[in-house]
Amino acid sequence: MKLSSKNLETRLDTVYDAIVVGGGMGGLSAAIYLARYGLNCLIVEKGRGRSFWMQDTRNFLGIDPTTPGRNIIDHGTKQAIDWGADHLRGFVESVTDEGGTFAVRVKVGKKDETGSVFRTKYVVAASGIIDVLPQLENMQNVFDYAGYTLHVCMICDGFDMWDQKAVLIAGSEGQINAAFVLNWFTPYISVLTHGLYPVSGEMKQKLAEHGYPLYEQPIAKFHGENHQLSGVELADGTRVEATTGLVGMGSIYHNDYLKDIELEYDGQNLVTNEMCQTSHERIFALGDLKLGLNQVSIAVADGTLAATQIWRMIRRAAAPRKWEENLLVNTAEPEVV
Amino acid sequence: MKLSSKNLETRLDTVYDAIVVGGGMGGLSAAIYLARYGLNCLIVEKGRGRSFWMQDTRNFLGIDPTTPGRNIIDHGTKQAIDWGADHLRGFVESVTDEGGTFAVRVKVGKKDETGSVFRTKYVVAASGIIDVLPQLENMQNVFDYAGYTLHVCMICDGFDMWDQKAVLIAGSEGQINAAFVLNWFTPYISVLTHGLYPVSGEMKQKLAEHGYPLYEQPIAKFHGENHQLSGVELADGTRVEATTGLVGMGSIYHNDYLKDIELEYDGQNLVTNEMCQTSHERIFALGDLKLGLNQVSIAVADGTLAATQIWRMIRRAAAPRKWEENLLVNTAEPEVV
Repeated sequence: MKLSSKNLETRLDTVYDAIVVGGGMGGLSAAIYLARYGLNCLIVEKGRGRSFWMQDTRNFLGIDPTTPGRNIIDHGTKQAIDWGADHLRGFVESVTDEGGTFAVRVKVGKKDETGSVFRTKYVVAASGIIDVLPQLENMQNVFDYAGYTLHVCMICDGFDMWDQKAVLIAGSEGQINAAFVLNWFTPYISVLTHGLYPVSGEMKQKLAEHGYPLYEQPIAKFHGENHQLSGVELADGTRVEATTGLVGMGSIYHNDYLKDIELEYDGQNLVTNEMCQTSHERIFALGDLKLGLNQVSIAVADGTLAATQIWRMIRRAAAPRKWEENLLVNTAEPEVV
Repeated sequence: MKLSSKNLETRLDTVYDAIVVGGGMGGLSAAIYLARYGLNCLIVEKGRGRSFWMQDTRNFLGIDPTTPGRNIIDHGTKQAIDWGADHLRGFVESVTDEGGTFAVRVKVGKKDETGSVFRTKYVVAASGIIDVLPQLENMQNVFDYAGYTLHVCMICDGFDMWDQKAVLIAGSEGQINAAFVLNWFTPYISVLTHGLYPVSGEMKQKLAEHGYPLYEQPIAKFHGENHQLSGVELADGTRVEATTGLVGMGSIYHNDYLKDIELEYDGQNLVTNEMCQTSHERIFALGDLKLGLNQVSIAVADGTLAATQIWRMIRRAAAPRKWEENLLVNTAEPEVV
């Protein structure tokens, strides 16, 4: 059922089997499976996640490559609700471990000061990441190209950069190393630091050896039209020619709500086992939040794995359902206590 | 490019980066990724694999639940070819490790006695399994229900069996244990052995305790209409009422072509690492052939993982592409040998 501030109170006495934080690719896949295992689950989706910004979906089997991510989200949200999941547009503020259950505090709408508390046996953390973009005074100028010809994922879009003049906008010296992978797709790479940090002599030497020019001025403006990049103008007026680009400035992880729970991380990624279970056995993590490739297909499979493991754990703890009318008299000797 | 007996000779001198054995869900996903990494790959698809028989696709994000598996295969085959993969309808007879490459012998068409040999650096084994069905004199009677209301995958279709009278057709005593998982979805389970094996007293007792009747006669005929099961008639004339069923008779693994190569197995499943790499570093295994859940989403993610690892290995062994016209004079001291 679609929940909102108007009807969410009908669910405040429910103990969900699972609350899925994030209704992107991984979270929706988890919810579809959970619902089809007959488990009651709630998806809480804040909106505008990474896949919402995907202008096309190049690599995902069965989906036309021009399909925007938000179409898959809309379709999957309907799928999950049709199978019986609850869906709420809101922001998860905190998750508190109460022992057998978690209290999940959700703010619904900007004016909701205190939020509402839902209870659940399992939490699926599927809230993902968002890519850091270069900050310009006019962010609309960035949004005009980001996700179109200015990419954030080399695995997804490297193919579409093939042998084109490309800018690599690197958020730190370490991130400049992406140039030495991106060169699989194109060797015509100009590296931009956006004026954020100094570059060591060693890195400058390496770039020079590869013939990749380095520009250390802040970006002033992206040029082009209809989302097709043609070049980048820097603060000192330099114009760098490029028909495509890769932003490698890191990601913001949407996992603040987990901060009160001790979990194992590798860097900012949650460490999980082969069923996407974190170091807390009732908390699962999917897709971009955990270690591994940040791909739609991986998040979708992660949803399958987490939901299946949650089902196993709940099922194994449940009493077996018998066909009562068929029950034969138990002819075994009664156990003597 | 679509290959056939008419044009395959144009590829006999090619050394592919990867040959993908099996053009089902996993193989197509692998090929889409491989092609978009700019690698040249050939999919060899024998046809009529497990997903070809799927009458609907309940659990896969973004796909309407009524979509038959073969529609996804057709769509994905076009996707893969559009991105640059080769696709050949044929049967892989053998894979021979020649050191740096493999020789892959493929029979194309029933009259092809000797087959054609293609060469590749990597092999992706994505040839899957096929479910064993009860053998009746009139197999059309089985096909009328299998994949519709007589299911082969509890995870996929348990939901659609909810609280219905169900038959479990178990291929061995061990497989009768599926009843004690299926009872999550429905407790109204009749167990059929199809007359294939004797059942121990211990199992009979356990079934009786759950109220699940056991029928040890061979199945004579499935009853129903329009693919909707209504009951099962046994050889002795008994009629077992059921509107749904689960076949749990095991699977046939399509991996004969790997028999000359020593690989690590767990039972019949290939053991793989987190990137779907088998114990042979240039052979990968996906989906149902390897350990793990037999789900479309898992196979699709496996294709992503295997293709990405193959790309990494090929890329890391390749010379870095430089922007030649931009190359600066290397000012470092020449190395004195």
